[in-house]
Amino acid sequence: MKATAGMKPAAASAPSALDELCINTIRTLSIDAVENAKSGHPGLPMGAATMAYALWTRYLKHNPSNPDWPDRDRFVLSAGHGSMLLYSLLHLTGYALPLQELRQFRQWDSKTPGHPESELTRGVEVTTGPLGQGFAMGVGMGIAAHHLAARFNGHGHTPVDHYVYVLCSDGDLMEGVASEAASLAGHLKLGRLVYLYDDNHVTIDGNTSLTFTEDVGERFTAYGWHVQHIDGEDLAAVGRAIEAAQAETGRPSLIVARTAIGYGSPNKAGTAAAHGEPLGADEVRLTKEALDWPLTPEFYVPDEVAAEFRKALPRGQRSEDDWHAKVEAFARTRPDDAALFRRMLAGELTQGWERVLPSFAASDGPMATRTASGKVLNAIAPVIEGLIGGSADLAGSTKTYLEAYPDFSAEEPLGRNIHFGVREFGMASVLNGIARHGGLLPFVATYFVFSDYLRPALRLAALQQSRGVFVFTHDSIGVGEDGPTHQPVEHLASLRAMPGLQLLRPADGNETVAAWKLAIEHPGPTALALTRQNVPVIDEPERIREGTPHGAYVLAEAASGAPDVILIATGSEVAVALGARKILQAEGIEARVVSMPGWGLFEAQPREYRDQVLPPSVRARVSVEAGASLGWRQWVGEDGDIVSLDHFGSSAPASVLFEKFGFTPEVVATRARAVVERTRRQEA
Amino acid sequence: MKATAGMKPAAASAPSALDELCINTIRTLSIDAVENAKSGHPGLPMGAATMAYALWTRYLKHNPSNPDWPDRDRFVLSAGHGSMLLYSLLHLTGYALPLQELRQFRQWDSKTPGHPESELTRGVEVTTGPLGQGFAMGVGMGIAAHHLAARFNGHGHTPVDHYVYVLCSDGDLMEGVASEAASLAGHLKLGRLVYLYDDNHVTIDGNTSLTFTEDVGERFTAYGWHVQHIDGEDLAAVGRAIEAAQAETGRPSLIVARTAIGYGSPNKAGTAAAHGEPLGADEVRLTKEALDWPLTPEFYVPDEVAAEFRKALPRGQRSEDDWHAKVEAFARTRPDDAALFRRMLAGELTQGWERVLPSFAASDGPMATRTASGKVLNAIAPVIEGLIGGSADLAGSTKTYLEAYPDFSAEEPLGRNIHFGVREFGMASVLNGIARHGGLLPFVATYFVFSDYLRPALRLAALQQSRGVFVFTHDSIGVGEDGPTHQPVEHLASLRAMPGLQLLRPADGNETVAAWKLAIEHPGPTALALTRQNVPVIDEPERIREGTPHGAYVLAEAASGAPDVILIATGSEVAVALGARKILQAEGIEARVVSMPGWGLFEAQPREYRDQVLPPSVRARVSVEAGASLGWRQWVGEDGDIVSLDHFGSSAPASVLFEKFGFTPEVVATRARAVVERTRRQEA
Repeated sequence: MKATAGMKPAAASAPSALDELCINTIRTLSIDAVENAKSGHPGLPMGAATMAYALWTRYLKHNPSNPDWPDRDRFVLSAGHGSMLLYSLLHLTGYALPLQELRQFRQWDSKTPGHPESELTRGVEVTTGPLGQGFAMGVGMGIAAHHLAARFNGHGHTPVDHYVYVLCSDGDLMEGVASEAASLAGHLKLGRLVYLYDDNHVTIDGNTSLTFTEDVGERFTAYGWHVQHIDGEDLAAVGRAIEAAQAETGRPSLIVARTAIGYGSPNKAGTAAAHGEPLGADEVRLTKEALDWPLTPEFYVPDEVAAEFRKALPRGQRSEDDWHAKVEAFARTRPDDAALFRRMLAGELTQGWERVLPSFAASDGPMATRTASGKVLNAIAPVIEGLIGGSADLAGSTKTYLEAYPDFSAEEPLGRNIHFGVREFGMASVLNGIARHGGLLPFVATYFVFSDYLRPALRLAALQQSRGVFVFTHDSIGVGEDGPTHQPVEHLASLRAMPGLQLLRPADGNETVAAWKLAIEHPGPTALALTRQNVPVIDEPERIREGTPHGAYVLAEAASGAPDVILIATGSEVAVALGARKILQAEGIEARVVSMPGWGLFEAQPREYRDQVLPPSVRARVSVEAGASLGWRQWVGEDGDIVSLDHFGSSAPASVLFEKFGFTPEVVATRARAVVERTRRQEA
Repeated sequence: MKATAGMKPAAASAPSALDELCINTIRTLSIDAVENAKSGHPGLPMGAATMAYALWTRYLKHNPSNPDWPDRDRFVLSAGHGSMLLYSLLHLTGYALPLQELRQFRQWDSKTPGHPESELTRGVEVTTGPLGQGFAMGVGMGIAAHHLAARFNGHGHTPVDHYVYVLCSDGDLMEGVASEAASLAGHLKLGRLVYLYDDNHVTIDGNTSLTFTEDVGERFTAYGWHVQHIDGEDLAAVGRAIEAAQAETGRPSLIVARTAIGYGSPNKAGTAAAHGEPLGADEVRLTKEALDWPLTPEFYVPDEVAAEFRKALPRGQRSEDDWHAKVEAFARTRPDDAALFRRMLAGELTQGWERVLPSFAASDGPMATRTASGKVLNAIAPVIEGLIGGSADLAGSTKTYLEAYPDFSAEEPLGRNIHFGVREFGMASVLNGIARHGGLLPFVATYFVFSDYLRPALRLAALQQSRGVFVFTHDSIGVGEDGPTHQPVEHLASLRAMPGLQLLRPADGNETVAAWKLAIEHPGPTALALTRQNVPVIDEPERIREGTPHGAYVLAEAASGAPDVILIATGSEVAVALGARKILQAEGIEARVVSMPGWGLFEAQPREYRDQVLPPSVRARVSVEAGASLGWRQWVGEDGDIVSLDHFGSSAPASVLFEKFGFTPEVVATRARAVVERTRRQEA
């Protein structure tokens, strides 16, 4: 690959006085902001300032006036605690982050939170701080860039032509998620990744000799990465290494850059004391003296420094203009592709896409919701052109393979099926990276119990509102013989507690279709909990289609319209509730069945609707869900009963477990009868 | 180190006919059990049978008559899906696992669940199945063995003299947790670890070429491991490799053993079809024919095979007898050490240990509960001799450093402070390994928000009831400036949903002491949620000491004894509730404050006690907790109010966040007033 269009990298050279001044501005802005906030991490920005300066002024293709320009290079500060490095760079190069925001570092309502938040600050590509995840999201961005390049570049056109740069720390590289992502990136030969490893030998607790003595370079060589070792304070060496990394098109690159944490601080540089707390007034003074920096004013940006950094503005505008010209040329020769390209970058859905959604009839026979999900995925893949994803070595059993499309690989980057390997956390971080990159709509899949493995990435998806779908199959003791290690029990409740996540547990094939529709249209992350085992297709397609978007709805009304009891269920237990309703009906007890696939959606409904579905006057209520009871009291009320599972499962066929653990129509009917009798006594 | 005592390993040699017969017995038992269950994973046992046979009959020091003998070698089947390999070995070598149990593989109430469960089947060291964790638990066992050896071996005595053997798969090695643990094990130079990597090139989705093309051996060399490559079907080569690994005392060993998944199956060997489903009747027949095995009876164990394997019984008994003799000699020369050794192995606490627990007075001034926790840990370390642990690079801020003890390291295995590095999941798995090894009482620590990173290991701790303590500090928006990536919101609720975990969130210093006492005495895992920020010491030491073990108790009674409203709070919000009580009191509203550090404990109390604490007649209730509302309806009832946080936090000083998000006495008093008025209106 040739050098990035629109950029003429200066030849690497010895630092000029201006270079030094620029680098020290990054350092002192970071020092002052942390000091001012009385909180933060000065050490990383001080040590990594040289690298960051080289990258941001000589190589990074970006337009501070338009942080969302699709063909910009991506920069990820995986070591998010060094946020002042990023804020300094954003401010200095001309993003909409005035000095006043740096003065408000870590304060209420500022744009400069303790760790970078993409949802809050323009120019911040991804939310980082939880270590390792920025590293892995960078891999996701690289996958997105490679795939989009494969789809739209060619015949002399390169509308997709950018790099992903990641700055990471010792802590990032100790985290397992970074290992997973690094192994995957090496396997996929993602040549557009350039990772700068701030090898400063210091963590919070002290020197890395305490815990981290592996040969990182050798490890990355084993993953198939291109590895260089440099002095990270040597501006020329940094430049040469970045250029070599850019030139390496068949492998991701790791630049192991030896730096000194807290560079410039006479007493704290190279020690853990520089890591995570303000230097202190005395040391700030000594450091500024050592850097030959005026003690006042604080937050000082020399005019020549400002002028130098702000060159990014016209240069960035030129880069973007060049790109627009490229895209126009592309559009002239391949108008349909260009239209698709623009629509995908805008995240727009094809008009009428939902017409391809399948529907199921009771006559189709029982069907696992994972199977219905697989049919939906395959139906929509042709019309949701940006849909791309895969599973953590469970393509077959999660039913997430797009049959009409090839596998994504180094040799076939056009593929839309990503094999993630047994790397759940890495997979979910890749989803976040793809989602934040833009242009694609990612999905990932594993068994529901292994949502635990990727939970930290699910949280970051919820926090930064990554648009993407987490397909979790095998969602209960319905897993059967694999036993309690593979049977989720607490997972529905535990994810209901997470803000910002749309969690849906559909009851049958048609509710699965409706859930997928919600997922595709949702601007943030959705998690689908799907069965392994077959469930009947419920013969109420209309109610289901209309009801599901409300989160809960009356699936089966009491014959009289005046229920004696309400059975509330989710997922596979909806069929159990319907069975119980029949038994009760035969005894003259009228039961309404409410299907409640999405708690959050239902909570967001107007009270009027909620009271229609769960009339306050009907105090006899029973919930049925093969999972933890936590939270269900909210829906069944004080007089209701909760049919739940508050212990781990067991290894046996699923049907045996449902029987043994009381998830049968008979047991639910018995529990409902008792509730009806109790409430009648109370009312009498 | 010399060869393991009590074992005379046969020189590795070419396989005899009897060897072949024994190996094929493992294969065919596994085939038949999976076929019979119509579910399971035949491929791994078939491919790894040679390795397993070599290890279990020639090297593994174990006594099938006493699976709990402390100086046995540990065997971990990290690839837990190959459970039939382990069950075959347990049955054949004479453990209390009759053939009937193999016939009941994966059935209700059997001792042979789909994945091995240590809590269910004697001889199963740890519960495995969720990939990567067995690998990491093995490292924990190795740490325990090294530490105990350092404490008790010497002067000619070796009461601790065993190895840890782990059989792991491609899937294990793709998981980040294995990477974390491998890096740590290499750093710690754990020479007693012998890992057999079943390198069969096949995962569920197909060939490892799909996803896993890194150079595993080179990666482990980079971690500091001793690495060998062998043909895993070559019995002699396996023996030589195990002996070389045993002889390597300064590094953990990885034996990369190339095998064929489903070895012996004419049509499925070497393919993903052999991985996770029965071979099918036809292929079973063809396989048995290929292995020169009789088609009937199923579950056939030739007499000479039984006799050969059962030699483990007398050999094991001799090994254990030798060890008892060694321990007696040890006891004669070092009686005090031997007494301590026995007590630690038995998991007994020093009589009266709790007398060293500190107590705090209001005059001590405000104190973070993490600080109180640190004081407890340091107070009890001398009397809880098996206490060992550390943090994921947060020793200082989680206050979990044992000041009087050295760091655990390759050079100083006597140390009781383990530096885990930024490897939360690996750390928690190490806790499980130490706990299951026996002899020690492990604790680990990180920020509460990062409980997400180690959640899968916490679940395995809950499932197998690992005795150990998870210290989670920075337990709310009290984290302050670090912002939402570091502020737990959903974590209390999400862990309350997990069965088998004792979760405690103490309100002040003395409740922290009481919580630690519960944790130390609990036979399973405990998680402590502790504040970063200071909270007042509440001047009710007696109520706190007596109340905490009940999970919830009346901390401050309404002056009249007849409360108008009950304020229920946990952790740092208890002080907020006490403040609200004062405000209300001044207005003539009588409030009771209930501190509820442990939901699970409270739920387990008799109804009478629960009704004393939360009298049904008092319907005006308000809960106060700076976390998700999920589940609180259970305690406040339909008429109550929930002061909670159902969105992500923000970056600002903690005091600002509590104010902005409504966790102040004033806001709670206002909410309580409204509830009192509403319930009075209803009652009127």
